[in-house]
Amino acid sequence: MSKFGMYVKFIAKSGQRDALANILLDSAASAQSLKECELYIVNISDTEPDTIWVTEVWSDSEAHEASLAQEETKASIQLAMPLIAGVEATKVRPIGGKGL
Amino acid sequence: MSKFGMYVKFIAKSGQRDALANILLDSAASAQSLKECELYIVNISDTEPDTIWVTEVWSDSEAHEASLAQEETKASIQLAMPLIAGVEATKVRPIGGKGL
Repeated sequence: MSKFGMYVKFIAKSGQRDALANILLDSAASAQSLKECELYIVNISDTEPDTIWVTEVWSDSEAHEASLAQEETKASIQLAMPLIAGVEATKVRPIGGKGL
Repeated sequence: MSKFGMYVKFIAKSGQRDALANILLDSAASAQSLKECELYIVNISDTEPDTIWVTEVWSDSEAHEASLAQEETKASIQLAMPLIAGVEATKVRPIGGKGL
């Protein structure tokens, strides 16, 4: 089974980046106990003040799909939606390297 | 000191993706001994057959700069250059999450 990765670019509504980052950091904290979630890193940008990037790696795409169906994930998405102006996800397939 | 991250998108010349991925995996193996390099993950794309993404996290931007000046890094770049049609890097600032 291939690992599954995503780079998710969130554009926050003006002034809402830090509030959105905090929700995403809470999601990362919840993911600490999920062994299928190997990475969930929240990043900001020094050049794009409304942008947040999340780097995710999951054991496989099914584990990622299953996480989206969890009540806790749905609650986070409900909290985050009003703060988000746009989202773009790039799906990747991790094949190796340091940190996996 | 802030951590430093990059998503580096490589477009390989036609037919050269796997050769380029192997050079990047060798670079990741070399980075295993560098404590300043926290992540160096090589990814392919299921939808773009010539694309490789590298996810990097360094302890700070100076550590990343210093790595580029190493003879081993320069030798890898020399090997990789003939296989590369294009490169785009997105710099990010990791602020937390799972896997850092």
